[in-house]
Amino acid sequence: MAIPEIERLVRLFARLPGLGSRSAQRAVLHLLSHKDAALEPLVEALSHAAAEVQRCSRCRTLDIGSPCSICRDSERDATLLCIVQDVADLWAMERSGAFNGRYHVLGGTLSALDRRGPDELGLPLLQARIAADGVEEVVLALGATVDGQTTAHYIADLLAPTGIRLTRLAHGVPVGGELHFLDDGTLMAALKSRRPA
Amino acid sequence: MAIPEIERLVRLFARLPGLGSRSAQRAVLHLLSHKDAALEPLVEALSHAAAEVQRCSRCRTLDIGSPCSICRDSERDATLLCIVQDVADLWAMERSGAFNGRYHVLGGTLSALDRRGPDELGLPLLQARIAADGVEEVVLALGATVDGQTTAHYIADLLAPTGIRLTRLAHGVPVGGELHFLDDGTLMAALKSRRPA
Repeated sequence: MAIPEIERLVRLFARLPGLGSRSAQRAVLHLLSHKDAALEPLVEALSHAAAEVQRCSRCRTLDIGSPCSICRDSERDATLLCIVQDVADLWAMERSGAFNGRYHVLGGTLSALDRRGPDELGLPLLQARIAADGVEEVVLALGATVDGQTTAHYIADLLAPTGIRLTRLAHGVPVGGELHFLDDGTLMAALKSRRPA
Repeated sequence: MAIPEIERLVRLFARLPGLGSRSAQRAVLHLLSHKDAALEPLVEALSHAAAEVQRCSRCRTLDIGSPCSICRDSERDATLLCIVQDVADLWAMERSGAFNGRYHVLGGTLSALDRRGPDELGLPLLQARIAADGVEEVVLALGATVDGQTTAHYIADLLAPTGIRLTRLAHGVPVGGELHFLDDGTLMAALKSRRPA
């Protein structure tokens, strides 16, 4: 394979999470062999998403327009705020249908290795928002991993002086498991029995 | 996840070989979270490939321009033609550096289920080319699967009347492979075609 255009494409695909160089090659060959049915719709959808999808300036989720549809939704309980690691976790919470407040998307966990500190997780934004919006309860919906729980403790310490009610998802989340792999029933049960942090 | 632009993108990614809906979601979130570093280079590379990469009109491989660089290369032995299933197989042959002839890419195996008959594999094109180009040997380099071998038999029957020399890749112990990991079929084939040491 000495065709630079194809090699470059394979390299870009191989960088996506979950793809290795073999599966990237298979995906690229599939796309190039089905230009009309696969490649062009993908280019079109990617360009469209690149132009339209943006990070919400309030909760940092991905949506069309900022603030996002959840932040704009006046039916939502503004006094209830759920902190999640990723957009995929927010989607999992929404799928469960058990939560009617708003969100804050960290975009990861605290990690010295990956250079993610409080600023990268938008914690100053979170603090300002809690003060301004009249939030009464913060639900820490982080994964039951070491990183997730470390981050939850850090945020609990950070918010303790505000005297706000802090809760976290109940046990029921399998230890070592990640939120966006959970089934809706487990998520619902965990949300229902949330406890003071 | 009720954002149609993102859902559409996830669906398109999930259709690629080797990706399920979870890994498609992870890939799409990664792209949307890293617009400058991942999404835009990918859109650019895909658009470029969509415009530039085409199927060679002679051997049906993918390359910039048609005929492809292999068909244009006058250093190649025009009397030797290798039949492969896919472009990935052609690349594997090229990586090995062991073959200096030209190729014919079938684009799959004969399959009634997938509606791939002789025309879809470009066999009329292959026959015309063999007659016109003075090909003296055809190497059937198809996979050692039931489908691959069925297709190889079909092509062998098709080309028999031309009186051309037909060969196929040898079966045997993979280089670097250990005997006790091999399946019975491979061992049997390797024993059958044993050679003087």
